[in-house]
Amino acid sequence: MDEGVPGLPKVDVLQRWVAEHRTMASLGKVASYIPALAKVDPMQLGICIIEPRGTMMTAGDWQVPFTMQSIAKVVGFIAACCHWGIPYVLDRVDVEPTGDAFNSIIRLEMHKPGKPFNPMINAGAITVSSLLPGDSSEQKLDYLYGIFQKVTGARPAVDEEVFQSEWMNAHRNRALAHYLKDTGYLACEVEEALEVYLKQCSIQVNTEQIAMIGLVLALDGFHPMSRKQVFPKEIVRLAKALMLTCGMYDASGKFAANVGLPAKSGVSGGIMTLVPANRRSHASFPDGCGIGIFGPAIDACGNSVAGVSLLKEMAREWDISIF
Amino acid sequence: MDEGVPGLPKVDVLQRWVAEHRTMASLGKVASYIPALAKVDPMQLGICIIEPRGTMMTAGDWQVPFTMQSIAKVVGFIAACCHWGIPYVLDRVDVEPTGDAFNSIIRLEMHKPGKPFNPMINAGAITVSSLLPGDSSEQKLDYLYGIFQKVTGARPAVDEEVFQSEWMNAHRNRALAHYLKDTGYLACEVEEALEVYLKQCSIQVNTEQIAMIGLVLALDGFHPMSRKQVFPKEIVRLAKALMLTCGMYDASGKFAANVGLPAKSGVSGGIMTLVPANRRSHASFPDGCGIGIFGPAIDACGNSVAGVSLLKEMAREWDISIF
Amino acid sequence: MDEGVPGLPKVDVLQRWVAEHRTMASLGKVASYIPALAKVDPMQLGICIIEPRGTMMTAGDWQVPFTMQSIAKVVGFIAACCHWGIPYVLDRVDVEPTGDAFNSIIRLEMHKPGKPFNPMINAGAITVSSLLPGDSSEQKLDYLYGIFQKVTGARPAVDEEVFQSEWMNAHRNRALAHYLKDTGYLACEVEEALEVYLKQCSIQVNTEQIAMIGLVLALDGFHPMSRKQVFPKEIVRLAKALMLTCGMYDASGKFAANVGLPAKSGVSGGIMTLVPANRRSHASFPDGCGIGIFGPAIDACGNSVAGVSLLKEMAREWDISIF
Amino acid sequence: MDEGVPGLPKVDVLQRWVAEHRTMASLGKVASYIPALAKVDPMQLGICIIEPRGTMMTAGDWQVPFTMQSIAKVVGFIAACCHWGIPYVLDRVDVEPTGDAFNSIIRLEMHKPGKPFNPMINAGAITVSSLLPGDSSEQKLDYLYGIFQKVTGARPAVDEEVFQSEWMNAHRNRALAHYLKDTGYLACEVEEALEVYLKQCSIQVNTEQIAMIGLVLALDGFHPMSRKQVFPKEIVRLAKALMLTCGMYDASGKFAANVGLPAKSGVSGGIMTLVPANRRSHASFPDGCGIGIFGPAIDACGNSVAGVSLLKEMAREWDISIF
Repeated sequence: MDEGVPGLPKVDVLQRWVAEHRTMASLGKVASYIPALAKVDPMQLGICIIEPRGTMMTAGDWQVPFTMQSIAKVVGFIAACCHWGIPYVLDRVDVEPTGDAFNSIIRLEMHKPGKPFNPMINAGAITVSSLLPGDSSEQKLDYLYGIFQKVTGARPAVDEEVFQSEWMNAHRNRALAHYLKDTGYLACEVEEALEVYLKQCSIQVNTEQIAMIGLVLALDGFHPMSRKQVFPKEIVRLAKALMLTCGMYDASGKFAANVGLPAKSGVSGGIMTLVPANRRSHASFPDGCGIGIFGPAIDACGNSVAGVSLLKEMAREWDISIF
Repeated sequence: MDEGVPGLPKVDVLQRWVAEHRTMASLGKVASYIPALAKVDPMQLGICIIEPRGTMMTAGDWQVPFTMQSIAKVVGFIAACCHWGIPYVLDRVDVEPTGDAFNSIIRLEMHKPGKPFNPMINAGAITVSSLLPGDSSEQKLDYLYGIFQKVTGARPAVDEEVFQSEWMNAHRNRALAHYLKDTGYLACEVEEALEVYLKQCSIQVNTEQIAMIGLVLALDGFHPMSRKQVFPKEIVRLAKALMLTCGMYDASGKFAANVGLPAKSGVSGGIMTLVPANRRSHASFPDGCGIGIFGPAIDACGNSVAGVSLLKEMAREWDISIF
Repeated sequence: MDEGVPGLPKVDVLQRWVAEHRTMASLGKVASYIPALAKVDPMQLGICIIEPRGTMMTAGDWQVPFTMQSIAKVVGFIAACCHWGIPYVLDRVDVEPTGDAFNSIIRLEMHKPGKPFNPMINAGAITVSSLLPGDSSEQKLDYLYGIFQKVTGARPAVDEEVFQSEWMNAHRNRALAHYLKDTGYLACEVEEALEVYLKQCSIQVNTEQIAMIGLVLALDGFHPMSRKQVFPKEIVRLAKALMLTCGMYDASGKFAANVGLPAKSGVSGGIMTLVPANRRSHASFPDGCGIGIFGPAIDACGNSVAGVSLLKEMAREWDISIF
Repeated sequence: MDEGVPGLPKVDVLQRWVAEHRTMASLGKVASYIPALAKVDPMQLGICIIEPRGTMMTAGDWQVPFTMQSIAKVVGFIAACCHWGIPYVLDRVDVEPTGDAFNSIIRLEMHKPGKPFNPMINAGAITVSSLLPGDSSEQKLDYLYGIFQKVTGARPAVDEEVFQSEWMNAHRNRALAHYLKDTGYLACEVEEALEVYLKQCSIQVNTEQIAMIGLVLALDGFHPMSRKQVFPKEIVRLAKALMLTCGMYDASGKFAANVGLPAKSGVSGGIMTLVPANRRSHASFPDGCGIGIFGPAIDACGNSVAGVSLLKEMAREWDISIF
């Protein structure tokens, strides 16, 4: 099937779906562990889809700024792999899904000697932050921002209010970081790794920017505007496999089953996903696309309720699952 | 890139790769928990690839019979969904990867009330066996064999020696089944469910037959020879998502990262995998294909060492990852 | 302090306390996993205390028959040690408290290779049952009944209705037994060990009989009526240490802190405890005593609510803690 | 039996045993996580026993100074209970043994909402440190030192070299503390609680001082030299129950079975134990005694190898088990 409602242009369909699925937000609630997130309007929902030739479809609150939170884990992982190569990074963080909550510490202790299970959960992402090149948090962040800039064209801005809140409330992440330091899986000091990790979480974006990152991933690292291969294809492939198996916290399996696209969510309500470019010509997005979503009311797993609901509809109606 | 070695037909390349990767078998060993498996020659390696128009490429020990073991979990899951529909089945077994060993019982107790995490690990597969329609193990197996027959055209044969061995040594599976009975996740008696489960594990196949099943999955349930839709597309999509996230035991994440195809392995050394049909025309298999592999020396996770090694080469050289 | 209420004989005090603490039963409920236990009047409470010279103090429903359930684990452990000696038994079951529920299976898998943590939880007790001498469940039970008879002077009677119910509902225990069989910690067949285990659980007693067993433990294995050392002192000491650290399920630590006596409870509401004989002459029970309690309403851990409450009062007022 | 070797005074027997059990040290090794501990001579073994009338028996390296390490957990727990009362403290830390390693974090996450299982493992002891009265680490330590002084008569001295080493290497303890902060079980800031906790670990003692603490515990809080009740009896009883069930790390059950005395060990090789005063006149120590041991080579659980071996001999020959 080519589109959700015969006869309507895709963007009109999209706007109707956004209106419909926005109501799902009432089943979730905004993250409340820091004030900056708690005060967001939970009923927002926005989407931005970008195709390789630059066509952009948008609906709802697509321009509202939010912080990347866990979506930044994908960028951090790509950054570390770009500098060190894949084998070096995978020696320090595994790529197995766990079924555990994003901030779980159990598995670090159960599976000696504490190698984090994957870079999409906090423990792994903090290890990845510590691996970024540089002798200080500034240098590590500078490297990370450069990777980000290759895609979006601009240095990312950190939401200082969110960062300060995160920093003051990072007890669980500090516990993870100290655990990793103890077992030797942290490549720098705890505070340095945490600053990098929490600043990358606090990068401010809107759905257009994460759709743009998604698009570059869809094209295996090729940037369709700059016409450059900005990341090696092998690294991007690996990142997409990780997103599919581990990107939606402990609902990753259900998301793979119901939607079937590589995706990464954040507790601020963002979802970065994509349709890979290598699809047959009858598909809705023959050349792939990047998709950014923002819907701040999240479920118990940490995923945007309305966002996941909207993606299920899109997958069902537009036949965009990779399976 | 179109093929592994420029200028050579694919089948010649395949035969060379089989010769090369066969040596990897020395890094693994055959399953030894029952005599019938322990006596198999560990250095065997065979592959069969079938394309939608019936073209078949084979190499090595592709005709050697072996028992399906965990590969049958895919068929059992599809069978239960065909009868009850997806929602009924997913109420009784989840679809989350775990990172745990295939026979782990920990998670059943940790995550109350003991719903099995996914149908690709033993606990979930035993639940699925209990769900098959029928009032006896015979009726349940009859239904399952019918599903199998829709694909291969023949009633499956059970290797009685293997089944008897499995049955006598099924202590861990009995522990799982009794646990599931206690928590209410078994829909029939323990011994009945175990007979169904262990008989499906003991179905004798060769690589051609599992490649054929893989091909029907690649085509979303459409059988290219009988020209019939033998399974609903939604069920097949779900099965493929499960294979990708959970199909290679606790190395599923690494397999997704390194190979990037939906696959299911068994401890007898079989791997059933496939290239989905919905791929761009420049790919090596534009219309998809089913792949069956047999390499009985397995690693600590339970996957064929030479088989996985061969698939990595194919994925790298033929560019067949779904990501 | 010598007694709870100055001027009153101990037995009068005891009767008043039983009346008072009986009301605590409303905070618990009777075990309901089998009908035979579920139909018991929850508000019952009885106690029997026996001193070395045969003095017996009783109050409340002390004559009501009930099944030993987990209290029999102590007798089974002593029996196995009497036959094999302590080192042989401790090679097959550890003596560490766990903090886990009585029927937990997690630790068997987490701590390779699955040696049960202690003989006071189900996994360890089933292993102990399998160790009893004899080639059949009849012979093993015969040995066990003989041990019981050494203390009480009579062959124990099994409540057949309870046993049949237990046998039909033993899914979780069957799971544990099959797990132990798989890891090699079961010394006979699963069904044989389970029959022994569940029959010992179904032995019918009243508070006098368990007080009598407690008294022999208090005297380090010496039977004050027969004037014989019926069990070796080292085995009895070990059994008392186990009762103190592991005897009250996952509330053993709290019981040691609040009462401070070796004790073993059962889900039928029985508690067998004792004051060791080696106490200074100013104590309430200078020569030790055995204590049997019956109060069928149990808490979430599996211990008699009114029984534990009564023992706290006795420990506080009569100063009988071993610490 | 009254003594180990007929005809010899106890102190001579003790000296012979020390010489014999010293050789057991070769089965362990000194703690090596900080340099200050790693450089200690592993073959040392010393013991000091003090009876209520002040009689002191010593043997071996009883005068060698060492740091209290986990032995201080007992003093910290008593201190917190003296200030807040038992119920307040037990609302914030449980009293259940776990069978887990001393620095395990798993159970905090498994058993929501993360209440530490007992004050004898690191998580619980850090919580207790945070509970000490005072608005700063200095004030909290001042209170703790005062409790210590009530027993030994002198302000304790902190080994600054050890403290600095501990402070720099406290990653795992920082992980625990941050976890406790996250779940609300830390009553002050992380760094403040850690300073208190690590300074109490670094208090320098010899076997005489810990024997003196043990003696006061043996006498239920009564100090036989100052003739004062320095701690409430209920608190001391509770502390002894905790020592018995949880005091020897994850070998507490085995120690209770083999020795049968309340005890607390530290990774520096110290063991503080005692014979309660309430024992019959035929016992070796009719009025109780305090026992301090130092033997720095520790086993995998963290207990002095030679020290435990010596205590087993004493328990066997002198019949001092509380059971």
